[in-house]
Amino acid sequence: MGLKGRDLTSIRDFSRDEIDEVLTAARRLIPYAEGKKSSDLLEGKVLVLAFFEPSTRTRLSFETAMQRLGGRCVTIADASATSMRKGETLSDTIRMLSHYGEAIVLRHSNEGAARLAAMVSDRPVINAGDGAGQHPTQTLLDLATIQEAFGTLRGIHVTLLGDLRYGRTVHSLARALAMYGTELTLMSPPGLGLPAEVREGIEETGARLKEEDQIHRAVRDADVLYVTRIQKERFADETEYQQVAGSYRIDASSLVGAKPKMIVMHPLPRTGEIAPEVDATPHAAYFRQAFLAVPVRMALLSLILAGRLP
Amino acid sequence: MGLKGRDLTSIRDFSRDEIDEVLTAARRLIPYAEGKKSSDLLEGKVLVLAFFEPSTRTRLSFETAMQRLGGRCVTIADASATSMRKGETLSDTIRMLSHYGEAIVLRHSNEGAARLAAMVSDRPVINAGDGAGQHPTQTLLDLATIQEAFGTLRGIHVTLLGDLRYGRTVHSLARALAMYGTELTLMSPPGLGLPAEVREGIEETGARLKEEDQIHRAVRDADVLYVTRIQKERFADETEYQQVAGSYRIDASSLVGAKPKMIVMHPLPRTGEIAPEVDATPHAAYFRQAFLAVPVRMALLSLILAGRLP
Amino acid sequence: MGLKGRDLTSIRDFSRDEIDEVLTAARRLIPYAEGKKSSDLLEGKVLVLAFFEPSTRTRLSFETAMQRLGGRCVTIADASATSMRKGETLSDTIRMLSHYGEAIVLRHSNEGAARLAAMVSDRPVINAGDGAGQHPTQTLLDLATIQEAFGTLRGIHVTLLGDLRYGRTVHSLARALAMYGTELTLMSPPGLGLPAEVREGIEETGARLKEEDQIHRAVRDADVLYVTRIQKERFADETEYQQVAGSYRIDASSLVGAKPKMIVMHPLPRTGEIAPEVDATPHAAYFRQAFLAVPVRMALLSLILAGRLP
Repeated sequence: MGLKGRDLTSIRDFSRDEIDEVLTAARRLIPYAEGKKSSDLLEGKVLVLAFFEPSTRTRLSFETAMQRLGGRCVTIADASATSMRKGETLSDTIRMLSHYGEAIVLRHSNEGAARLAAMVSDRPVINAGDGAGQHPTQTLLDLATIQEAFGTLRGIHVTLLGDLRYGRTVHSLARALAMYGTELTLMSPPGLGLPAEVREGIEETGARLKEEDQIHRAVRDADVLYVTRIQKERFADETEYQQVAGSYRIDASSLVGAKPKMIVMHPLPRTGEIAPEVDATPHAAYFRQAFLAVPVRMALLSLILAGRLP
Repeated sequence: MGLKGRDLTSIRDFSRDEIDEVLTAARRLIPYAEGKKSSDLLEGKVLVLAFFEPSTRTRLSFETAMQRLGGRCVTIADASATSMRKGETLSDTIRMLSHYGEAIVLRHSNEGAARLAAMVSDRPVINAGDGAGQHPTQTLLDLATIQEAFGTLRGIHVTLLGDLRYGRTVHSLARALAMYGTELTLMSPPGLGLPAEVREGIEETGARLKEEDQIHRAVRDADVLYVTRIQKERFADETEYQQVAGSYRIDASSLVGAKPKMIVMHPLPRTGEIAPEVDATPHAAYFRQAFLAVPVRMALLSLILAGRLP
Repeated sequence: MGLKGRDLTSIRDFSRDEIDEVLTAARRLIPYAEGKKSSDLLEGKVLVLAFFEPSTRTRLSFETAMQRLGGRCVTIADASATSMRKGETLSDTIRMLSHYGEAIVLRHSNEGAARLAAMVSDRPVINAGDGAGQHPTQTLLDLATIQEAFGTLRGIHVTLLGDLRYGRTVHSLARALAMYGTELTLMSPPGLGLPAEVREGIEETGARLKEEDQIHRAVRDADVLYVTRIQKERFADETEYQQVAGSYRIDASSLVGAKPKMIVMHPLPRTGEIAPEVDATPHAAYFRQAFLAVPVRMALLSLILAGRLP
C-alpha cells in the first residue's frame, strides 16, 4: 500500500481506505492551503502540468497546491498555443514530459488519455480530466466538501440534480459515494438521466438509488443537493432549453423546506443554475467546495510525491 | 493607516502620504529589483495574476517583483486561452481566485472591474488596468521616475504631449501630480484634449494648468516631457493621422533648447512617437521608467502583503 | 575566458574548449536533472523566457533547468497571446525584458533575432532558435548525447539522414561535429541536400564528408544515425512526398546490419520517420537525447549566470 509513486487516472484506482487517507490529509492541510502555515515538503521537486485543453481553475489550484508545498511547476496552459502536438503521438509527448518533472498532471480532451499516459510514463500521472472519462481529483474534493459539512460520508442523502447523462463529474461522484453506502436521489430532465452502465455499477454496490421529479421533494429529503450545468447544446431548440433550464434553477424559494444543515454544491462555473441570492444562505457550499480543491490537491501531491504530509 | 491588506483600485485609494511611502520604499528596493540583493520576505505567499486581457510588460514586471521577494505566482496570462469566463460572472471568478493566493492582480477590459473585484474578494485586489478606467501602478512608477530624476515631485513642470483624451495613463498621472502642486502643460491634437472632468478635477486642487500648441515652446519649458501614443483608429483617414502623428513626433531636433536635466518619458511600447536617436541623449528616461516598474511593484507587494519591507 | 555573462547566439560563439566545458558540466548535473540531487545555486535569480513563437519542449526544459537550480522564471509562452509586439521594435522589447531578469532566453521566427537581442541587452541572451538561423542549445544536447554514448566525440561516424537542406538542427550539428574531426555521411532526398555554404564550411575544417544513397549502407557504417523530419510542404504533391518519406523511414528492419553500439537520434517530435518498434531496440537514443536537454541547459545556466556549478 501507500500512495507514493502511484497514478491517479480514475477514482477506482484508489481503495476506500486510500480515499479516506487523502481526505484526512486534506483536512490537516487546510491551514497550509490558506497560507497560514507553510511547508517546503516538495522543495526541489517539479510538477509538469500538461493541459491540452484549458481548465483554468483546475490548473491554478494544482499550481497553488504545488507551490504552497515548496515545489515548482512547468506548465502547458493550452495546447492550441503549442506546436507540440503537431502530429506527435500522446505517448511520445508524455515520455518527453516525464523527463521534466517528478509527476505529470494531465488534462486532455480524449477519454482514456490519462490511462495511456500512465502506461508510458515512468513518473506518476494524475488525471485532471480526460474528455468524457474521469476527473478523479474533482471527485475527491466533492467528497471532502461533504465530509467537512457532515463529519462523515456514511448515511448521507445526496441528490444529484441536472444533466446526469453527460456530466462526468456526477458519474465519478455517484460511484464513489456508493462505496460509502450513501443514499442517492436522481433528478434530471427527460433524456438526460444517468447512463445505464453507471446506474448498474452503483446498484451492484447495494447503494439505495431512487428517482425524483419534483424539485421541492428533492430538496426536502436531501442532505446534499449537487447541482450541475444543463448545457444548451443538448437541446433541439432554444425554447425547449430555456424551459428545462428554468425548471431546474435553484433560487431562495427552492430552498424553502430544506433541512437546516443541507448544503448546495456545484462544480462551478455556474451559469444560471443557482441564483446569486443563494450565496448568502447557510446552504451555499460551492465556494467552500472550490477552496477545498487546494488542500485536496496538496494532500494528493504530498502523498504521491513525498509519501508523507508536511 | 498602514497599507497591509489594502486594495489598490485607483490612485485615489491612497493618500499622498501613502503614495510617498510607496515611492520611498521603491527607492530602497532598487538593489533587490536589480538582483544585487535578495529577499525571502514573501516566502510562502502566492500572488494570483488574472490578466483577462494580455499585457505582457505589466504581467512580467509583477511576476518578477513577486519572485524577487521570494513569493510565488499563479497566472492567467490571457483569458481567450481559458474556458473560465464562459458565462461565469466576474464576481464568481474573483471569489474562486481569492482562494488560490494572498492577493489578486487584475487586468480587465471593463472599467470598474477592479472595484467590483475588491468588493467581492476577501484578499487585496491590485488593479493592473481596467479598460478606460485606472492603472494606478503605472501612475506610481511614473511618479517614481520623476522623483528619482529631480529628487522631488514638488515644483516640477510636466508637459503632457499627445493623445490626452483616451490615454488613461495621463489622466491618472495628471490627477496624482496635481496633489503635489506640479505645473502642468498640455499639448494635444484637435479633438484629443484632456476630458473636461479630468481637467476640472485638477483645477480644483489649485494646480497650475495651461495649454500649448508649439512643440518647441512645450519642450523648452518642461522638466518632464511625457509623450503618449496617438492611435490611428482615432482618425477619419490615414492621411490625417500621418500628418498629426508626424507633428507630434519627438526626435533629436525637437529637443534643441530643452533644459539640460529635462527627461522624456513614455509608458511604452512606443511606435513612432519618439525617434530611436533620442535613446542616446541624456534626456531619454523611458527605459529607466520601464525598469522602475519592478521596484515600485515590489514596494506595493511588500507593503500590502507583509506590511513591511525586506 | 569563462562563460559567466556570455551570450550564446550561435554554436560558433563558443570555442571547442568552452563546448567541452559545457558537456563536462552537463554530465555532472545529470543527478540534479533527475531530481536526485537539488541545488540553490541560482536562488534569487530570474530567467526571462521570451518565446515569440511557441516551442513547448525547449521552453519546458529551460524552465525545469532553471527551477532545479533554485532560480525563477518569467515567461512569454507565445507572442500571439500578447499585445507586446504591436508595432514595437525587437530592440525596445529586449531592452524592456532585460530589466526583468538576469538573462533572456529568446525564441523568434526571424533569423538574426538573437544576435540583435544580444547587442541591445545588458544581460546575457541565449538563443533558443531563431527561424532558419541557429539553435545552439539543441546542438549542445545533440553533442552531449553522442558523447554519453561513446565517451568521446572524436572519430565518431555520424550519418545525417533526411531533409538536410531546411533543417537548421543538422546544419549547426554538422558544423560543430566538424570541429571534432567527426566523419560525416549525408543521405537526403533529391533537392533536400546540405546547402553548399554549410558543406564548404565543413570541408574547410578538413572533416571527412561523403554522400550515400543506400539506407542499408548508411546504417551499416554509422555510429550515429541522426534522423530528421521530411516536411510535406517541401514537395509538389502528396504522392511524391509519401514516396520519399516512405523510403527514408527507419524501422526495425532498417537496423539489420547496424553496429551493436549504433544509436539512432532525432530532435523530436517525430511524425513517421522512426517506427515505434525502434523504441524497444538498444539503438533508440532519442528519448535520452530529449532528457539530456535538461542537464545541458542546467550547465549553460549555471556557467552563464553563476560562473560555476552547484
